[in-house]
Amino acid sequence: MITTNPLDGDHFKDECAVFGIYGHSEAAALAALGLHALQHRGQEAAGIVTHDGTQFHAHRGIGLVGDIFADQAVIARLKGSNALGHTRYSTTGEPMLRNVQPLFAELEIGGLAIAHNGNLTNAHAVRKELVRGGCIFQSTSDTEIIVHLMATNPGTVVERLIVALRQVEGAYSLAIMAEDCLIGVRDPNGVRPLVLGQLDDSYIFASESVAFDIIGADFVRDVEPGELVVINADGVHSHRPFPPAQSRFCIFEHIYFSKPDSVVDGTSVYEARKRIGAELAREMPIDADIVVPVPDSGVPSAIGFAAEAGLPYELGIIRNHYVGRTFIEPSDEIRHFGVKLKHNANRAAIEGKRVILVDDSIVRGTTSKKILEMVRSAGAKEVHMRISSPPTTHSCFYGVDTPERDKLLAANNDVEAMRKLIGADSLAFISIDGLYRAMGLPGRDPEAPHYCDACFSGDYPIRLTDQIGGNGSRQLSLLAETG
Amino acid sequence: MITTNPLDGDHFKDECAVFGIYGHSEAAALAALGLHALQHRGQEAAGIVTHDGTQFHAHRGIGLVGDIFADQAVIARLKGSNALGHTRYSTTGEPMLRNVQPLFAELEIGGLAIAHNGNLTNAHAVRKELVRGGCIFQSTSDTEIIVHLMATNPGTVVERLIVALRQVEGAYSLAIMAEDCLIGVRDPNGVRPLVLGQLDDSYIFASESVAFDIIGADFVRDVEPGELVVINADGVHSHRPFPPAQSRFCIFEHIYFSKPDSVVDGTSVYEARKRIGAELAREMPIDADIVVPVPDSGVPSAIGFAAEAGLPYELGIIRNHYVGRTFIEPSDEIRHFGVKLKHNANRAAIEGKRVILVDDSIVRGTTSKKILEMVRSAGAKEVHMRISSPPTTHSCFYGVDTPERDKLLAANNDVEAMRKLIGADSLAFISIDGLYRAMGLPGRDPEAPHYCDACFSGDYPIRLTDQIGGNGSRQLSLLAETG
Amino acid sequence: MITTNPLDGDHFKDECAVFGIYGHSEAAALAALGLHALQHRGQEAAGIVTHDGTQFHAHRGIGLVGDIFADQAVIARLKGSNALGHTRYSTTGEPMLRNVQPLFAELEIGGLAIAHNGNLTNAHAVRKELVRGGCIFQSTSDTEIIVHLMATNPGTVVERLIVALRQVEGAYSLAIMAEDCLIGVRDPNGVRPLVLGQLDDSYIFASESVAFDIIGADFVRDVEPGELVVINADGVHSHRPFPPAQSRFCIFEHIYFSKPDSVVDGTSVYEARKRIGAELAREMPIDADIVVPVPDSGVPSAIGFAAEAGLPYELGIIRNHYVGRTFIEPSDEIRHFGVKLKHNANRAAIEGKRVILVDDSIVRGTTSKKILEMVRSAGAKEVHMRISSPPTTHSCFYGVDTPERDKLLAANNDVEAMRKLIGADSLAFISIDGLYRAMGLPGRDPEAPHYCDACFSGDYPIRLTDQIGGNGSRQLSLLAETG
Amino acid sequence: MITTNPLDGDHFKDECAVFGIYGHSEAAALAALGLHALQHRGQEAAGIVTHDGTQFHAHRGIGLVGDIFADQAVIARLKGSNALGHTRYSTTGEPMLRNVQPLFAELEIGGLAIAHNGNLTNAHAVRKELVRGGCIFQSTSDTEIIVHLMATNPGTVVERLIVALRQVEGAYSLAIMAEDCLIGVRDPNGVRPLVLGQLDDSYIFASESVAFDIIGADFVRDVEPGELVVINADGVHSHRPFPPAQSRFCIFEHIYFSKPDSVVDGTSVYEARKRIGAELAREMPIDADIVVPVPDSGVPSAIGFAAEAGLPYELGIIRNHYVGRTFIEPSDEIRHFGVKLKHNANRAAIEGKRVILVDDSIVRGTTSKKILEMVRSAGAKEVHMRISSPPTTHSCFYGVDTPERDKLLAANNDVEAMRKLIGADSLAFISIDGLYRAMGLPGRDPEAPHYCDACFSGDYPIRLTDQIGGNGSRQLSLLAETG
Repeated sequence: MITTNPLDGDHFKDECAVFGIYGHSEAAALAALGLHALQHRGQEAAGIVTHDGTQFHAHRGIGLVGDIFADQAVIARLKGSNALGHTRYSTTGEPMLRNVQPLFAELEIGGLAIAHNGNLTNAHAVRKELVRGGCIFQSTSDTEIIVHLMATNPGTVVERLIVALRQVEGAYSLAIMAEDCLIGVRDPNGVRPLVLGQLDDSYIFASESVAFDIIGADFVRDVEPGELVVINADGVHSHRPFPPAQSRFCIFEHIYFSKPDSVVDGTSVYEARKRIGAELAREMPIDADIVVPVPDSGVPSAIGFAAEAGLPYELGIIRNHYVGRTFIEPSDEIRHFGVKLKHNANRAAIEGKRVILVDDSIVRGTTSKKILEMVRSAGAKEVHMRISSPPTTHSCFYGVDTPERDKLLAANNDVEAMRKLIGADSLAFISIDGLYRAMGLPGRDPEAPHYCDACFSGDYPIRLTDQIGGNGSRQLSLLAETG
Repeated sequence: MITTNPLDGDHFKDECAVFGIYGHSEAAALAALGLHALQHRGQEAAGIVTHDGTQFHAHRGIGLVGDIFADQAVIARLKGSNALGHTRYSTTGEPMLRNVQPLFAELEIGGLAIAHNGNLTNAHAVRKELVRGGCIFQSTSDTEIIVHLMATNPGTVVERLIVALRQVEGAYSLAIMAEDCLIGVRDPNGVRPLVLGQLDDSYIFASESVAFDIIGADFVRDVEPGELVVINADGVHSHRPFPPAQSRFCIFEHIYFSKPDSVVDGTSVYEARKRIGAELAREMPIDADIVVPVPDSGVPSAIGFAAEAGLPYELGIIRNHYVGRTFIEPSDEIRHFGVKLKHNANRAAIEGKRVILVDDSIVRGTTSKKILEMVRSAGAKEVHMRISSPPTTHSCFYGVDTPERDKLLAANNDVEAMRKLIGADSLAFISIDGLYRAMGLPGRDPEAPHYCDACFSGDYPIRLTDQIGGNGSRQLSLLAETG
Repeated sequence: MITTNPLDGDHFKDECAVFGIYGHSEAAALAALGLHALQHRGQEAAGIVTHDGTQFHAHRGIGLVGDIFADQAVIARLKGSNALGHTRYSTTGEPMLRNVQPLFAELEIGGLAIAHNGNLTNAHAVRKELVRGGCIFQSTSDTEIIVHLMATNPGTVVERLIVALRQVEGAYSLAIMAEDCLIGVRDPNGVRPLVLGQLDDSYIFASESVAFDIIGADFVRDVEPGELVVINADGVHSHRPFPPAQSRFCIFEHIYFSKPDSVVDGTSVYEARKRIGAELAREMPIDADIVVPVPDSGVPSAIGFAAEAGLPYELGIIRNHYVGRTFIEPSDEIRHFGVKLKHNANRAAIEGKRVILVDDSIVRGTTSKKILEMVRSAGAKEVHMRISSPPTTHSCFYGVDTPERDKLLAANNDVEAMRKLIGADSLAFISIDGLYRAMGLPGRDPEAPHYCDACFSGDYPIRLTDQIGGNGSRQLSLLAETG
Repeated sequence: MITTNPLDGDHFKDECAVFGIYGHSEAAALAALGLHALQHRGQEAAGIVTHDGTQFHAHRGIGLVGDIFADQAVIARLKGSNALGHTRYSTTGEPMLRNVQPLFAELEIGGLAIAHNGNLTNAHAVRKELVRGGCIFQSTSDTEIIVHLMATNPGTVVERLIVALRQVEGAYSLAIMAEDCLIGVRDPNGVRPLVLGQLDDSYIFASESVAFDIIGADFVRDVEPGELVVINADGVHSHRPFPPAQSRFCIFEHIYFSKPDSVVDGTSVYEARKRIGAELAREMPIDADIVVPVPDSGVPSAIGFAAEAGLPYELGIIRNHYVGRTFIEPSDEIRHFGVKLKHNANRAAIEGKRVILVDDSIVRGTTSKKILEMVRSAGAKEVHMRISSPPTTHSCFYGVDTPERDKLLAANNDVEAMRKLIGADSLAFISIDGLYRAMGLPGRDPEAPHYCDACFSGDYPIRLTDQIGGNGSRQLSLLAETG
């Protein structure tokens, strides 16, 4: 059986999105819409917690936002004018309801809900210490560490959160809802995005600005790296609880994760991708007839490439928008079957042509190989692959689902070997300096790179404590659970 | 809408059953069967946790045991030769999956699963203290208190459990599974039942002996009040960690809760009920033509009554064994409709007769009233109600779902007033001394009653700390959850 | 896996119940309740069709009545003051929604819904002829033949129905709803029951009188064998369209099929069963200590037996009322496991006793064998089996699900051989004359038996055309369908 | 609540797709894949019937193909080397399982399954006649008429089919599976598409060639208008049973219905749409900065338009690929909410620009209005709407779901009025002659148009018998059914 997901199986996957709104009479409905707009960041589970001034209300489920919150009665039960939402991509095994965020806990100072985009890199070490002190974990999520650190320290919600965050390492953009406030905070390097919006008198945190567009809210600004923003009855309050640090925003958000219509890190993602495509065309030109995107990830960079190269942009591959839960693979040898559930070569556009195929990245290379064969068997005379990111040679530990390093095609092969493996007439990647140029910088400064580009460079900006301690593969729970 | 449950809505309800098995290759399947045999003690949710020597496996669900564990694949995933199961009656609101037992937690010393029949009477007080110390509760269950007390104290599993139990008050029969042992323990007064069985080389704890019968296991003995029994690779070990206390087994287990084919507290429940019926016939005789049980709760005592009274035993009320989820009540005035979903008067047996109707108890009296009207309109000449328990004048706080005291008919009415309300020609209850006589004692000794009979006498053997502290109605959680 | 049904797997099974009501504002709700009361006649699917004066409305489903019609919105959509309902036991393979009755068809004269209890014995022959003439069948049900015969003949609804019924052979109690009337009709021999009831100004047809009790309606009378009763705006009209024939009511309705609280064929089923038990005690006495029914089918006859024999009636076998969808059978050798899902021996009542076990019939003998072993291993000193029907030596073709003849234990074994097979100390059946005596007749008159007793005597009152023609095993449909 | 479908609510909708395969060992799996590729033609229900040489097997369901056939066991039950599939868009009310095709019937000559794309225009008249003759319809589908006409006429399958088709009027592309052959046939005017493909030794009929691509089959040719193609063990046989007629292929298949990667009517749909866009740019030029498609329907024509106009093609509107079942609409006034579930304006691409927005058609105009407002509020300086079809002034009766005529914006408004209503700075449609030119003809010849263009011209090529007879709004069934 083949499971078909709207997102291609051969991509890095961002693991989560967060959404929090303070002070709107329809908080739960708006949170559901905001999460729907952020669905591309995590398609396997979602949840919303609201607070009505007295009590918290929660609904969590496995599946797409639009299904989990389809029932009007569900939204109606989520009372209150503050809401916190989360949608996630589950990294391992069967998704468990108890891992679905927002997490909720009752502390001495009242109820607390927390939603996390990112990944803590010293989770195992801290968790072990907390269990030794008598803490009982209800999930296998690293996020719960922050909750326990808040529970076992004194002070107000903000004070406890600051103490807790000073003990954890890693990438995090958090939205937290307590009884009297909503908090948004990014780690000191600002690896993952978090933006602040406004709808009338309400303030909103979201992973990307598209969550504002869907509800008619206005984009205000990015939450800054290392900034902790508190929204309460008195308005918006900015805190800077950490020592200054280099800004290291994840460059892959621009390449693939964020939606093209989003503005993150102060930039339009669509325009960034077009510029990357154009830079790629300048760096790696090739004589050809048409430019064809691998839909949908390659579309904006293909537009930029085609315009820069002065070549026609053609839909040489058509995507099927209908996906079901699973599909039977015929046992006969029907070639490239899996890829054809989602893509079909458009023979009329391709036949007899020299084709430049533009995609955003090559991870394992399996899908690229199948797409190339499909394009060739539809009659392309030549196929030249152009990739709008440098070769991905390293895994990510900051909240992105990537294969183990030895599964990364570029970690074990040079470009020529990769070309042969995927079967292209030529293959080229944008250079890391070219990528920085496309983002408006003179190139990468090895002393102070503006972005986290560890997956290309191996330069990890935040310590990988659990990896060093050999905890990386430690089983996170003694319990395998269903039901 | 009318929900129809196999158990009548106008009864006290035992809240739980536990089942644990150590050392059998089909532990999960046997646990599912054992829980099925104990289903009458809790019909709303069930769960099983197993341990395979390395890892724990859990499956929990809302509904009947036979549905939750119907899928062979579910049983297959519950690997291991030790298993712990629980089935529960949910007392408040919508059942939540996170409240379904066995609870599971990872302590410093490893994984731990716990299943509880009973109720702690100082839960609020201890919980408040634990939250103040930084503990985060994942359920609203009083049982979780024991887990946190174990987590925050040092020592082995058994040492931690003993320290924990010395801090709690209430009624409990617990089955606990740790990585290397299975533990069964009853509170010092032994309010709720727990029995020990054996199947080949495996040992089993269960709430009642019927759980042994279904899997072909042998009944060994009751776990004694205040006894803590540990089963591990070395065999069965008995501990007595508490100071000696009066044995106060719940007399209502004999009257209604336990299955008639069970042996609990050293006695056959069926024989006890027949003796109670006979004693009732001696105490409260009446001139009549036939003895009719209210099915199924009144059947054994009606057989005992009829034999003692020398009157024919007749099925004057026939039960419908088919129950669906809910049923529409016609808006027209169709009399006694709800009761008729389950019962129908057997006119041929009743018409023109003087009927003695035998039931086990009257709680609110609503069902009794409807049944009496149904029997009368089927042509009974006289209807005499005989109840095989004393009037229930007090609520239970030891793990039984009872209405608030002011909803108990007998708390606010004398027998004559009750007779009028339910519309009987005569009404009589067995006396509390008669009940003790039926159990083989000379009568109730006010200084040292052998049973907990608080629901009849108001004599509560265990302190009601939360009630005294006014915590009784305190909301147990700030969170209302679905999904 | 073992599927557990409320009805024992080793019984003949009546295949259907019908319910029709004319002229009540809550017709659909009352039909759902009536079907619930008749659920014992068919537990696998149910449907209701209503007519609101203009349009028909239908809802059909697989499962129990109480589940299919649990949703208030379903009942609300079934508008109109006339309703027709059906519940069925599906005889072969997976139940198909298109076979669930009532069947509905639009004829030239308007819509028509039909519900059938019974079985046509020339269905294959007539169906073949109709297909040859261009008729297209939508179900594999024999009932649809009547609809096509009505469609292809001229006249009013009643005229068409009479013409159709004159072409079919078999046993049928039909309830039919057309746009302006409700019709009830029994075949000339009156094999299956059909009774007429009244609720205020509404008239009702039902398979048994228990359907009247649940809605507070009054029993009026049996529809007579060969009688066709039309209810319309002008009242109740009786027709006699067939030549006179011997009345041959199914004696097994009294022995097992009908509910004990029903009145069918002019007699209380409960009283009939007690009389049969008493006659059995007279015919086949035995020295013993207690009389134990096999629940629930043996209960009334055991009461009659015990009273006649002057022996105590004891619940030596306790039934489990909770049944789930399926249950895993442990692969270990756990004896009599399947039977224990539903029954448990009550050791306290049985141990050391000479037990008379009373049941209604032995079909394959498999369950009897397991129950006997269970009773013995609970300590019974002797076990004497008494059966309240003669040996079942022949299959039924009149609407009852029976095994092929070679699977019937009594077709291939004498009583002594059967005794050995099931492991009883003694085994005895009531004689066929004894059975007739219990029903108030002097004995069976071979020339004019009052009942259909073909399953005991092989004397089939209605021609078995399809069997003779060798059509019996012909596949009824070329289509195997799901979804 | 707002239901979100992958296809926009303001479009004409093709009602069905058919797929038939003869002689392949994995017929059912290939049919499921073929239907998945044709899902855009009907998203509400699907079914497959197979034949294994002896028996037919069917599975039908409500929902998407990928869900209905997700279970490997379902495919495994659909045995046989011949398969027939159908996917449909349900036009009225709740979809009923009995209306889901393929229809199946047993005729005197054996089983028959039929799948239909199109609509009969004399269905009511013929149905009335058939019911008068005694036929009973099981569905409300016009397709069943053909089955009854085949049942009530003599001859072979092909003979009966020809007789039946000579009695019906309308548009139809049928695939029919009998016991020994697979048949494909198009109506004499060839309104709807049907293509023939080949996979090794197997032959395939499908509505569009994309169904061949997904399974690696080869496109052979169109089935010709009025051609009846029989595939059996002897190969492929072409029949011409109808008098010659004008070819009138639905031009809207090129504009919107067919997938861009399909070849139908001898032409690549993608290339046709690009040519239409280019012709539109020539006919209706405008001074602007960028060309933006309304995704996804306007993409190919926008590419053609931009290339012809020499303007940049930009993704000014981004589509959300995640759709759930339904979505709560906030009661607050959040503007254009419904449209934003699927689309978001890409402010970075649009702000300050003069935008040409290209879409395929305007039906009611509601969506266009919302999209225009969204684009404007994202900062567009001017918005010029260009439509790649002429104004749709007439309803379709040939198998396309269109609103009643008075709901069509263009039926009641001239272009200037429409421009004002949708709020564009300019609005222009391609002319009908321009459309014919884009298809390679000199323009429309009023005497002999090559296409059916009735929705633009009102020139209906096939008689509308039911409309003339006033049967159009007649209720098709007396029965409203659920379950």
